[in-house]
Amino acid sequence: MSPKMTTELLKQLRQVMKSPKYVQEPVQAYIVPSGDAHQSEYIAPCDCRRAFISGFDGSAGTAIVTEQHAAMWTDGRYFLQAAHQMDNNWTLMKMGLKDTPTQEDWLVSVLPEGSKVGVDPFIIPADQWKRMSKALRNAGHDLVPVKENLIDTIWTDCPQRPCKPLITLDLSYTGVSWRDKIVALRAKMAERKVLWFVVTALDEVAWLFNLRGSDVEYNPVFFAYAVIGMNTIRLFIDGDRMMDPAVREHLQLDSTLEPEFKIQVMPYGSILSELQAVGAGLSPKEKVWLSDKASYALTEAIPKAYRYLTPYTPICIAKAVKNASETEGMRRAHIKDAVALCELFNWLDKEVPKGTVTEIIAADKAEEFRSQQKDFVELSFATISSTGPNGAIIHYKPVPETNRTLSVNEIYLLDSGAQYKDGTTDVTRTMHFGTPSPYEKECFTYVLKGHIAVSAAIFPNGTKGHLLDSFARSALWDCGLDYLHGTGHGVGSFLNVHEGPCGISYKTFADEPLEAGMIVSDEPGYYEDGSFGIRIENVVLVVPAETKYNFKNRGSLTFEPLTLVPIQTKMIDVNLLTQKECNWVNDYHQKCREVIGAELERQGRHEALRWLIRETEPLIRV
Amino acid sequence: MSPKMTTELLKQLRQVMKSPKYVQEPVQAYIVPSGDAHQSEYIAPCDCRRAFISGFDGSAGTAIVTEQHAAMWTDGRYFLQAAHQMDNNWTLMKMGLKDTPTQEDWLVSVLPEGSKVGVDPFIIPADQWKRMSKALRNAGHDLVPVKENLIDTIWTDCPQRPCKPLITLDLSYTGVSWRDKIVALRAKMAERKVLWFVVTALDEVAWLFNLRGSDVEYNPVFFAYAVIGMNTIRLFIDGDRMMDPAVREHLQLDSTLEPEFKIQVMPYGSILSELQAVGAGLSPKEKVWLSDKASYALTEAIPKAYRYLTPYTPICIAKAVKNASETEGMRRAHIKDAVALCELFNWLDKEVPKGTVTEIIAADKAEEFRSQQKDFVELSFATISSTGPNGAIIHYKPVPETNRTLSVNEIYLLDSGAQYKDGTTDVTRTMHFGTPSPYEKECFTYVLKGHIAVSAAIFPNGTKGHLLDSFARSALWDCGLDYLHGTGHGVGSFLNVHEGPCGISYKTFADEPLEAGMIVSDEPGYYEDGSFGIRIENVVLVVPAETKYNFKNRGSLTFEPLTLVPIQTKMIDVNLLTQKECNWVNDYHQKCREVIGAELERQGRHEALRWLIRETEPLIRV
Repeated sequence: MSPKMTTELLKQLRQVMKSPKYVQEPVQAYIVPSGDAHQSEYIAPCDCRRAFISGFDGSAGTAIVTEQHAAMWTDGRYFLQAAHQMDNNWTLMKMGLKDTPTQEDWLVSVLPEGSKVGVDPFIIPADQWKRMSKALRNAGHDLVPVKENLIDTIWTDCPQRPCKPLITLDLSYTGVSWRDKIVALRAKMAERKVLWFVVTALDEVAWLFNLRGSDVEYNPVFFAYAVIGMNTIRLFIDGDRMMDPAVREHLQLDSTLEPEFKIQVMPYGSILSELQAVGAGLSPKEKVWLSDKASYALTEAIPKAYRYLTPYTPICIAKAVKNASETEGMRRAHIKDAVALCELFNWLDKEVPKGTVTEIIAADKAEEFRSQQKDFVELSFATISSTGPNGAIIHYKPVPETNRTLSVNEIYLLDSGAQYKDGTTDVTRTMHFGTPSPYEKECFTYVLKGHIAVSAAIFPNGTKGHLLDSFARSALWDCGLDYLHGTGHGVGSFLNVHEGPCGISYKTFADEPLEAGMIVSDEPGYYEDGSFGIRIENVVLVVPAETKYNFKNRGSLTFEPLTLVPIQTKMIDVNLLTQKECNWVNDYHQKCREVIGAELERQGRHEALRWLIRETEPLIRV
Repeated sequence: MSPKMTTELLKQLRQVMKSPKYVQEPVQAYIVPSGDAHQSEYIAPCDCRRAFISGFDGSAGTAIVTEQHAAMWTDGRYFLQAAHQMDNNWTLMKMGLKDTPTQEDWLVSVLPEGSKVGVDPFIIPADQWKRMSKALRNAGHDLVPVKENLIDTIWTDCPQRPCKPLITLDLSYTGVSWRDKIVALRAKMAERKVLWFVVTALDEVAWLFNLRGSDVEYNPVFFAYAVIGMNTIRLFIDGDRMMDPAVREHLQLDSTLEPEFKIQVMPYGSILSELQAVGAGLSPKEKVWLSDKASYALTEAIPKAYRYLTPYTPICIAKAVKNASETEGMRRAHIKDAVALCELFNWLDKEVPKGTVTEIIAADKAEEFRSQQKDFVELSFATISSTGPNGAIIHYKPVPETNRTLSVNEIYLLDSGAQYKDGTTDVTRTMHFGTPSPYEKECFTYVLKGHIAVSAAIFPNGTKGHLLDSFARSALWDCGLDYLHGTGHGVGSFLNVHEGPCGISYKTFADEPLEAGMIVSDEPGYYEDGSFGIRIENVVLVVPAETKYNFKNRGSLTFEPLTLVPIQTKMIDVNLLTQKECNWVNDYHQKCREVIGAELERQGRHEALRWLIRETEPLIRV
């Protein structure tokens, strides 16, 4: 990787920062955040403005350019990558290190008195604006919205915003029609006494209308906003996608409908002016509901007294609880995904000893097997295919420069998943194709004990996921080990592989309680820099648990694994397991045999079936 | 209990709410919070204003009186008590129930437009003021500070503010002189670039100057404030306590000292004007450090731009980490406390079958045995002595109306502790003096498993206590059981039995990481309404743990029990314990025998020693 040459670009940016064509008054600093106007985790190429100006293309980072300086804030995952990708114009601000200033403190230290700091109000979330604006104001500066994105003004070959065809999902996939979702949403709005709800997150728009797209890689979403009133539905979307007869039929655009279900289709770019019109027409006590992470621009469109902001929207919460159709779809998707992985691991078992399989080849092969399955759409994230020391890089993605050959001497970690029309998968298995060392087995077994501790946990209704995080670490902690990431995230149903509002992490205290029907990942790990990485990840469904007693009639919950891929028994030191843990592994493998075995049989994949049978032999504790 | 008649009092209060003698403009509502001017958990009789106006004397509650209404907000612990103690003038607002309005919402719903809501600015913490003021302002009302406390104006027989003699603690107790504490505090101030630090919490003043008092029951503190500058020390304290030669000597009031260690003694009541003078004399960038829970009055004395507010003060954090002298003192205190409890339980074993021991008698007897120990000062909280159904009332305190006789048919729960000059204790044991039922043993054993899971937990340096809370519940959760309180709180060293900034609770996310030297309680429980209560509580010291590996060189921690009182083996269903848990109990009891046995021997308490030997027979798993 050679760094991007940014001298010329920075010069251009500094010019537009002073140009009356774009700014009312010159701005002495300009902030370039990571996100798009929907605060998406994965963004389209046209939104990769921070990567364009700096060269650094990791998933998290904020650039700030002043007249003299250019600085990039990113976290520990990306220190090396950012240092490689950026030229000498840039100062790397290593977040999480003690001496690294916050963006606000740094700005205050370098800016001349009474400076203006510009930012695109569509890209910065309202809560971040508030924090930064306050800090700057306290130091005598001003945070100002710059309507035209200044990067876009200098990005001459900026790719077009994607506008790909839509997929309509019928009731057999979604379980609930978009009309019924609107009815349920309006009931929530009535409960909170709000008249309008603004849908800003892309996966929320997609879920609400039972539509999917492919505007963003890995996430089956499309660029759109929606504004839902008690009697109106406005969908802000561009392109000729609304000309597709299937979409028109699905949204009943040409039917005679009750007015409250009539969808008004409007241009994507008109959201701000429409919302301003809504804001201007409000009477006292009429409220508009927005996510507190919505952009500053849209939040400001509604006068402060009329805003009703929550960290999680009713759609986010409803979307997290999967109904019977979605759960069945997720089960089907995970069965197909397991078939593909049985094929892959069987193939790796044969091919790795030949020394011809690289990380990239293995990742491609995984995609090939997945793509053979019914309703496969695309991958759900960039495959982490890593062997030996690369496994210790938690967010590793093989590229030619780092591509390593799998061997019988190193641990191989594969974290991968796919989008099927009936569900989203995300699974990590850690394999050894030779003979693991006792130390590697020991570490693997601690991670497995943590995985089981979460998966088998029984906990009261109303428990938040972060309360389960320590269960995943306890066996590692006992030996002085740990891992530096959370234990689990919510998973969408043919939607984003990471979704709120629930998760299992020591960091997440704003998570919503776990409920039956929610789906999360369970993925503890252990990483030894320069040596190996271990992670065992299943996607699990929250289900009611039977318990001997029932305190305060609260009821209890537990998890059912949706992922049904063998956990390599060769890596397990069975003497470190309790009998209960040993039984868990054997029961899990029995289920893999039954469910995945039947599907392999049905698909005529006999060699992979034999691999599955071999890999699911019961453990015996001596 | 008959309710307090408050018609006349409320009439008087409503008069002063309109009287120009006390308020600039009439206030339409007056808030009476629970606390004192130091935001203490335990308060002196003169500060029990909410109890005076309403009759309700539970530890938590806020009264609001308007021209037409009088309402009391309290939580589930006190619904019954508040209903009994208040007359028909009062509406009980049951906090935690879905339909109960917040104070702000209720005020907005009952007040005429543009109302003024008064509150004593010394009693309301700044963070609460901010929240309430904003909510009221949004609805067109004003929260206003009323300088003279309106309850005090009508409380004709209000007791005097206590002003009891001080105790000086020498280095053998404190380990660090007050001068060295000032030096360390000033170093923290320099680090944060603040020029002044305002000490508002009573236990922080006491700790800083190595002084103790007895102005508040159970808490060895005295009414005072302190303001520490880089070159000045001001102590705001009333009475002739500074005339005591021991105190003068201790504080070196009559010595020739470097000016930066010279203590200026000032009247308690002059804190506000002195602080305002400090505030008025500040130059830009000069900051004053206050707790964000300090009173609104003192916070407002410093102009906003000069305030540096933190949830935990440097004194709070330093005080939590006990040094070698304090730790040794805590050990000694816990040995003496265990001797007293061995005497008590031996006595109960003999007396309970006679049917003459009530909860009050047992509590008094516990105090009697404790008071025989060296350096005993007072109890550290009101003894919870409860048998049968009373045990299920978590904050029970026996009174004649509820006093129950201990018997061989019911579980007895004793939660008690004391202040010794060398340390503070807090211990709960649950005993059966006959034959417990299998169900009672089952529940007790789950609680014990939770207690052990926390006590034996190994966790990385930097872990916050709330991450350990679920360990205490796991065995109960597995059977559908739980308890509705936190698992542990910080414990002072001859100071408050509850102190920040650490704890073990599913609720506490603002806790500071656990560090070696911190002392917390470990007290899971199980409560069955109308039947029994179980709790097993030890005070434990955070100590470094030896582990096989040492990830990222972080080091590990675990707990060492300071409390050494037998856990009744009769209550344990040994078949529900793992071998590891069984070993923990046996090792713990072995230590009780050795340490407490030696002290009982030394004190010539032979009968109690025989009881201890009997009660610490090793468990055997079959």
